[in-house]
Amino acid sequence: MSRWAYVNGRYVRHTDASVHIDDRGYQFADGVYEVWAVRGGRLLDMERHLARLQRSLGELRIPVPMRDPALRTILEEVRRRNRVRDGLVYLQVTRGVAPRDHAFPNTAPAPSVVATSRAIDIDAFEARAKVGVKVVTMPDERWARCDIKTTALTANVQAKQAAKEAGAQEAWLLDADGFITEGASTTAWIVDPEGQLVTRSIQDNILPGVTRASLIELAQAQNIKLVERPFTPREAAQAREAFMTAAGALLMPVVEIDGHSIGDGAPGPVAIRLRQAYLAFTQGQA
Amino acid sequence: MSRWAYVNGRYVRHTDASVHIDDRGYQFADGVYEVWAVRGGRLLDMERHLARLQRSLGELRIPVPMRDPALRTILEEVRRRNRVRDGLVYLQVTRGVAPRDHAFPNTAPAPSVVATSRAIDIDAFEARAKVGVKVVTMPDERWARCDIKTTALTANVQAKQAAKEAGAQEAWLLDADGFITEGASTTAWIVDPEGQLVTRSIQDNILPGVTRASLIELAQAQNIKLVERPFTPREAAQAREAFMTAAGALLMPVVEIDGHSIGDGAPGPVAIRLRQAYLAFTQGQA
Repeated sequence: MSRWAYVNGRYVRHTDASVHIDDRGYQFADGVYEVWAVRGGRLLDMERHLARLQRSLGELRIPVPMRDPALRTILEEVRRRNRVRDGLVYLQVTRGVAPRDHAFPNTAPAPSVVATSRAIDIDAFEARAKVGVKVVTMPDERWARCDIKTTALTANVQAKQAAKEAGAQEAWLLDADGFITEGASTTAWIVDPEGQLVTRSIQDNILPGVTRASLIELAQAQNIKLVERPFTPREAAQAREAFMTAAGALLMPVVEIDGHSIGDGAPGPVAIRLRQAYLAFTQGQA
Repeated sequence: MSRWAYVNGRYVRHTDASVHIDDRGYQFADGVYEVWAVRGGRLLDMERHLARLQRSLGELRIPVPMRDPALRTILEEVRRRNRVRDGLVYLQVTRGVAPRDHAFPNTAPAPSVVATSRAIDIDAFEARAKVGVKVVTMPDERWARCDIKTTALTANVQAKQAAKEAGAQEAWLLDADGFITEGASTTAWIVDPEGQLVTRSIQDNILPGVTRASLIELAQAQNIKLVERPFTPREAAQAREAFMTAAGALLMPVVEIDGHSIGDGAPGPVAIRLRQAYLAFTQGQA
């Protein structure tokens, strides 16, 4: 089956999908992105991702390429053309093509818009969630504006690779004071010894996670107390449970940190309950 | 006249020069670059740039795409095809094309290699050097590995644009202690009240500037004392002279910082002398 991509106004075969070498996304990482989880053919948390995209574009002062309904149509069409039932939709928007110069072009080019979609192995994904994953910690070397979802992911790539080589599935990054900021591509959570859900505040130089925001609502609906504060690897190792969230991971239990088992080394009841609630919630989305 | 670019093994018309949307340079800023100044048809400081490219690739663990002589041939050919006498040659190397995933691809793809060249208005450039430029300072929001010349330039773009909007030509970036690290795309220098040349050490999270390295040799040959240490905007405002270096700027006098004139508000004698020495040195390069 052919894969399709949307590139600057056209649906093209994925193998032929290209951007100009002077695209500022390529030369300057002058762009932002979003990833939607797809379940049962539907893009989850559509509105929250679109809202975050707008915010990221605004922070970098990249013009909005089109209105939300037009973007929605593209995202859904690219999913449809790739016949993705369970998987991801990826959207990237950059400042566009211009002769190379650090400052914004004097005449704003049209922003570049690229969208792709691909299926995931949902059975393997569910199997992994039943077992949980391992994380390792390392210094957070990223820039001062991690609240913007830019494609300047060099540090994230290096961290993820280091985690992989350490036999783990994610890197939890440490700020200068030794607190966990977030994962290389996920939000970090623990359930503390009192049963409270703990995650870092989005005021504290982390990405405002979309799945994080939905999960907070679901936790509140279940009367699970949430504390937004930084926590250490030591606290995580001594926590009842830990997990990570993201569009790609949904809610993935974390059962080991830096070689220390968390809880009894298996996904905990709060993680399992919230994961089910999130899946049920997403089934209910229009 | 047609412009030409080198893209992954072929010389193509610049308008047609493209890379795949799954190039990791586009999606992750998982790549590095170099810029050579061209004067009189020759690429300046060829070897030092090639050495730094190798180092950057090594730090990100991107395979070296080809040996230096082959790269040299491409760089010189792309200059020749574009008939550039005075200008720039740009080279970008990324980890290559692979399905999107933060960690390195399990099977390493061929690195992507893109090279372009363009002329500058040498008369306008020389005229600007006679007058000098203005800089403004702002917080350095970049990541912890500014010694690697990656394309993750989001922070640099924002800083350069802010400088431009403030009526300046460069942003000098400030670390958490209020010291200048470097410019958004240049190395920062002052001549202190004792006539000593002062620039930050490359051990201190800045790019190891190629023009910087050549200039240090030329200063030593002229018995100008060099002190490698951080300096503040206040010191710069009270300095005898200031200037910035880079392949694009060569040596550009800085005559104003944050609205304060430096020295008598005109390019100083040390900057002028070193600029002439650098131009003479580059004439002499084979």
